[in-house]
Amino acid sequence: MNIDIGNALAVEADPGLSEAALEALDDRVGAAHDRIAAGREAGEFGYAALNLPERTDPDAIREAVAPLSDSAAVLTVGIGGSALGAATVSTALGPSAVDHRVLDNVDPAHTQEVLDSLPLSETAVNVVSRSGTTAETLATFLVVREAMTEAGVDWTERTVVTTGAEGPLRELADEHALPVLDVPAGVPGRFSALSAVGLVPAAIQGHDLEGLLAGGQRAGDSLAPSLLDCPAYAYGAVAHGLEERGVTVNAVMPYAERLEPFAEWFAQLWAESLGKDGGGQTPARALGATDQHSQLQLYRAGPPDKLVTLVRPRERPELSVPEPDIDDLAYLGGHGLGELLDAEFEATEASLAAADRPNVRVEVDRLDAEAVGELLYAMEAACVLAGELGGVATFTQPAVEWGKRAARGLLGGGDFEEAAAVDEKTEREVE
Amino acid sequence: MNIDIGNALAVEADPGLSEAALEALDDRVGAAHDRIAAGREAGEFGYAALNLPERTDPDAIREAVAPLSDSAAVLTVGIGGSALGAATVSTALGPSAVDHRVLDNVDPAHTQEVLDSLPLSETAVNVVSRSGTTAETLATFLVVREAMTEAGVDWTERTVVTTGAEGPLRELADEHALPVLDVPAGVPGRFSALSAVGLVPAAIQGHDLEGLLAGGQRAGDSLAPSLLDCPAYAYGAVAHGLEERGVTVNAVMPYAERLEPFAEWFAQLWAESLGKDGGGQTPARALGATDQHSQLQLYRAGPPDKLVTLVRPRERPELSVPEPDIDDLAYLGGHGLGELLDAEFEATEASLAAADRPNVRVEVDRLDAEAVGELLYAMEAACVLAGELGGVATFTQPAVEWGKRAARGLLGGGDFEEAAAVDEKTEREVE
Repeated sequence: MNIDIGNALAVEADPGLSEAALEALDDRVGAAHDRIAAGREAGEFGYAALNLPERTDPDAIREAVAPLSDSAAVLTVGIGGSALGAATVSTALGPSAVDHRVLDNVDPAHTQEVLDSLPLSETAVNVVSRSGTTAETLATFLVVREAMTEAGVDWTERTVVTTGAEGPLRELADEHALPVLDVPAGVPGRFSALSAVGLVPAAIQGHDLEGLLAGGQRAGDSLAPSLLDCPAYAYGAVAHGLEERGVTVNAVMPYAERLEPFAEWFAQLWAESLGKDGGGQTPARALGATDQHSQLQLYRAGPPDKLVTLVRPRERPELSVPEPDIDDLAYLGGHGLGELLDAEFEATEASLAAADRPNVRVEVDRLDAEAVGELLYAMEAACVLAGELGGVATFTQPAVEWGKRAARGLLGGGDFEEAAAVDEKTEREVE
Repeated sequence: MNIDIGNALAVEADPGLSEAALEALDDRVGAAHDRIAAGREAGEFGYAALNLPERTDPDAIREAVAPLSDSAAVLTVGIGGSALGAATVSTALGPSAVDHRVLDNVDPAHTQEVLDSLPLSETAVNVVSRSGTTAETLATFLVVREAMTEAGVDWTERTVVTTGAEGPLRELADEHALPVLDVPAGVPGRFSALSAVGLVPAAIQGHDLEGLLAGGQRAGDSLAPSLLDCPAYAYGAVAHGLEERGVTVNAVMPYAERLEPFAEWFAQLWAESLGKDGGGQTPARALGATDQHSQLQLYRAGPPDKLVTLVRPRERPELSVPEPDIDDLAYLGGHGLGELLDAEFEATEASLAAADRPNVRVEVDRLDAEAVGELLYAMEAACVLAGELGGVATFTQPAVEWGKRAARGLLGGGDFEEAAAVDEKTEREVE
């Protein structure tokens, strides 16, 4: 992996990092790295995520899903960190004969549409919840189970469970002798892509799990006490240094359709880990070249509060543009679509620099398993570093509990004062 | 449509709007409304978009696509405003026997995957470009044409063109006697959803075009000189008033999977129209309930710089949750997934208010054609109002031209100084 921070330096961008600022930041990176290394060594909560490439056993995952190897489709039932990693990995690795679908919401119309579109007798259901009590996931799983039964399919033959060491989903798996995998201990959901949480669909699809883990391992091995020696830390440190200078938005813009879920995965990683104590960059999800025709006007000419993170593979399969029979388009002839996409990548990067807007280039060699594993791990390490530099509790998400209690109370699941607050809403309706 | 701004008032939110601020804002709304009404009356560039519901002729669209009524799929080839409106309308109106796919990028792998997945002999190609020279769209169209020819399909029998009065795409349509529809004069792409630009796929799918336009018309008829009498203006004015108080992010979070493209469409509308002169809220695209498990931590506990716009239909088809055989989940039994989703909507709204974070509730009765037309029109009118209040040139997007010239220069399409600037990139690589 290669990170180019040239366009985030003060010589190009405003706000940008001067050489002196970069040196000062690098001193802090050294101390943060020591903290991270100690956390990994001790297997501390959260830091333990950075040990996943060596902890995850691909054979155990393949063994668990072996009874489902005849599947035509995998349906992941999970939400947040229990779904985004799997979606990111499976999409990034390209199309498979085994379709991967995700139910990570409780929209009744959508749920019904997805169930109607799947060959249920050939579908593997991959249900993921650490606690085994996540309301959205369990409600959806109950609906999926019933749909399978109604279709004459024995759901116990077609379900794999990934959950924590205890809880109702674990009990259910034991009761019905379902294949069950462990959510790794000490790893928050958003950091668990390189474990069973993220790899079950890829395993059923026959993707290269060893390659994914080897890529993660490579990124792990590259962690070093200076941002100048470590791409992951360079990214995390620059993002944090810019946030200290008023850059409150991080727009992540991959130039590859297969990385569209990656931008969503990144958005959770960044928002839940760093969005606390009144700080934290807001991740904006974009896609190149498409969003040049949607967001670029704002990125170039709006408030100078954005870092644009441009991501691409250096190599990609090509598709030639036929010679145009239109004069104005003659210049496109002889080029490939990929060449056009790369020209737009470089043009957008330069156009942001010309407008003094900080941007960083993130490149992997090509979109294969190793590169995807490396990219995910590097962004996790960047996030952990940014959390250390910002002094926040990177691995918790306390602010979502209020709403969970309120929703549970509204549904009659207990007596919660938050539910009462819902009824006291200040209304000012305009019809 | 119903807008509830209660949680954006100073009694609930910080920043929030006091009653005095609301009154002062309302005086400005009166003047802005007069300007907008005059622009509509004179058919001025941009303002003319707000006349589309009465200008668009659904019969002309249906007539143009009549030869394609046997299609199993529609493939839209366009980018930005030439694609997002069509995607938004077709997805919001729910599944159809005619699948709608979009190629709005130049990713070679993805383009090949989409072409491989389509029954080309039964696919209608809907190519959309005002100028007829948009590089991404035309390059993709050349690739699609060739794929059809290679599959033994006469592309001239399966293509419908929507373009401006002049240009190479118009000439091509005339040469091959293709059905051709007009991009409406005076209407920027991002404001053209309720014209042929947004309605061709819906027409082929058999959706209710009259309903969409009637909904738009209803929203148009509701424009009035006070924000207290007009939901569209209430939304635009509150968003602008909050931006003046430091709310630089607008997170749009529909609680309906069918509105996921709507959030993207809104993001273009807001970013390209208002992101200029160093100002403009950054649109963040979210989806409820899913992003409660991804973004809500940041929205509640991060910087107080966000307006969260919560959107939902008041009625939706329901899907019952079967009685759980798990004690901890007994409370879910007897409820529907939609009830759960609505409880989460209200819980999230209250949880934001409890953290003093401003939020606005946008509700339509149900996701039918009228409501979708009304919602799109209302957001356009809100955006035009916000542009007036902010004193920006709402209908232009000058900042994207630099990159277009650079990309064209890089591909040998002319001598552009911007292309030379690309080669002068400041590099600082970390590997």
